[in-house]
Amino acid sequence: FHGHTHCGNHRHVVSVQVLSGCGVYDGTEIHEASAVLVHLSRGEAQVQMFAPNISQMHVIDHCKGQPSEESRNVLSESARIARGNISDLAQLKVSDHDAVIFPGGFGAAKNLSTFAVDGKDCKVIEDVERVLKDFHKAGKPIGLCCISPVLAAKVLPGVEVTVGYEEEAGGRWPYAGTAEAITSLGAKHCVKDVTISFIVTFQKNKVVTSPAFMCDTKLHLIFDGIGVMVRDVLRLSGK
Amino acid sequence: FHGHTHCGNHRHVVSVQVLSGCGVYDGTEIHEASAVLVHLSRGEAQVQMFAPNISQMHVIDHCKGQPSEESRNVLSESARIARGNISDLAQLKVSDHDAVIFPGGFGAAKNLSTFAVDGKDCKVIEDVERVLKDFHKAGKPIGLCCISPVLAAKVLPGVEVTVGYEEEAGGRWPYAGTAEAITSLGAKHCVKDVTISFIVTFQKNKVVTSPAFMCDTKLHLIFDGIGVMVRDVLRLSGK
Repeated sequence: FHGHTHCGNHRHVVSVQVLSGCGVYDGTEIHEASAVLVHLSRGEAQVQMFAPNISQMHVIDHCKGQPSEESRNVLSESARIARGNISDLAQLKVSDHDAVIFPGGFGAAKNLSTFAVDGKDCKVIEDVERVLKDFHKAGKPIGLCCISPVLAAKVLPGVEVTVGYEEEAGGRWPYAGTAEAITSLGAKHCVKDVTISFIVTFQKNKVVTSPAFMCDTKLHLIFDGIGVMVRDVLRLSGK
Repeated sequence: FHGHTHCGNHRHVVSVQVLSGCGVYDGTEIHEASAVLVHLSRGEAQVQMFAPNISQMHVIDHCKGQPSEESRNVLSESARIARGNISDLAQLKVSDHDAVIFPGGFGAAKNLSTFAVDGKDCKVIEDVERVLKDFHKAGKPIGLCCISPVLAAKVLPGVEVTVGYEEEAGGRWPYAGTAEAITSLGAKHCVKDVTISFIVTFQKNKVVTSPAFMCDTKLHLIFDGIGVMVRDVLRLSGK
C-alpha cells in the first residue's frame, strides 16, 4: 500500500485542510499545518482551508502553559495560519473537494471534539462528524496526523489508525496512552513510527494517518512523515 | 558566494530565531518561521527562540483584515510558534550563539520596528538594534527574510540586502515599493528572485537575505528559498 515512488502531477486535486485554532496547546499545531501546506503545494494540489466558527474551549498562554481569561474564536485564530484565506466549516461541501486533511494540536481534542476532557466518552462537533462521514461515504481520502486520528476513531466505526507507539519508550512517545483511548473508541490502533504514513483501504476506507508531534523527535522528521501522508492522500484521490 | 553543494554536519551550530508575534498581519509570518525551523533541524543546528516582551502594535483579525480592540503580548504570541520554548529577547547574549535569523511578517515592521508606520524614518527597537549590531561586530551570520531586511538596512549602514524585485511585475511582487525604502534607509538593494539566498560578505558583513512571501508564489518555492538562506547562514557560521 506504500507506493511512495509515485510522484505524479496532482494539478487537479482540490484538498481541504481543517484547522482548529492557532497554537499547539489550544488550537492547531502550527508546524503540522504548515508542513501539510508545503507538501500540498509541492504536489501541485490546490488547497482550501476551513475552521468552525465557534469559541475556543479556552486560551492557553503558551509561555506559561496556563489558561488565560481571554476568549478567542476558532475561525479567526485559524485565519492566522491561512493568511486570511479561510472559510466557515459549515460551508464545506464534500462534492467540491477531492480530499480532506486534519492536522493535529490540542485544538482537535478541545475545539473539534471533547476528547481532551472526556476521553473515550468524547463527542465530535457536528460539522466535523458530517465532513468525515461524507468524505468516507464518497470514497475520498482522509488524512489525519498527531492527535486527530481520534476524530476518525470516534465517527468511523472500526477504522484503523496510528498515533505512533503504545508505550512511552523513555519519553520519546509522551502521549502513548492515546493508543488505548483509540481502542476504547471502537477503532483499531496500529503501531507505526513517525516517518511513516499508515494507510487503511480495508472496507473502502481511504484513511491515512501519521504520528507527527505525538513523537518527541526532530522537526524535519515530523515534516517528512507529514510529507509521506500528504503524498499518500494525493495518490489515493486517484487524480 | 553560493556554495550550495556543501551539506556538512552543523551539529554544533547554535542558532537563534527572533520572533515578533504569531500571524502575518500583526506578527511573525508563520510559514516562514516554521520553514526556518525545519531547515535548521535538517542542518543539525540547535535552535533557541526569542521575542521581545512588549505589547503588539495592534491585533489584526486575520479573517476580516481589520484591527480588533484586543491587546496581545509579542512574547506570549510568539510562544505559539515556539511551542512554549522561548525567552525574552532582552536575555539574548550574542556570545552564547553562532547565528541569528529574523523571519518576516508585518510583526517585523510593527513590533520590532516602526517601519509599517514611519517607512524610511522608522525606529528599530533597542534590543533588536543591539542584537543585529552585536552579531555583526562579532562576525556572526545574520539571516533575514521577507520584510525583515529593513531592520538590517536601518541599523547596519551601507548593508546590501534583497527584498526581491523593484517592480510589481503584474502582481507577483506586491510589496515591490519596499526596495525603494531600503535605499532611503541608507542600504543598497539588490534584485533577487524568491528561490535565491543573497549573501553579502563585503566589509565582513555576513548578512543573508531571501525574499520569501514578498513574492506572491507557491509555498514550496518560498520554503525552498528559506532553505537556501538557512544553509548559507549555517555555512557562514564556519562550524
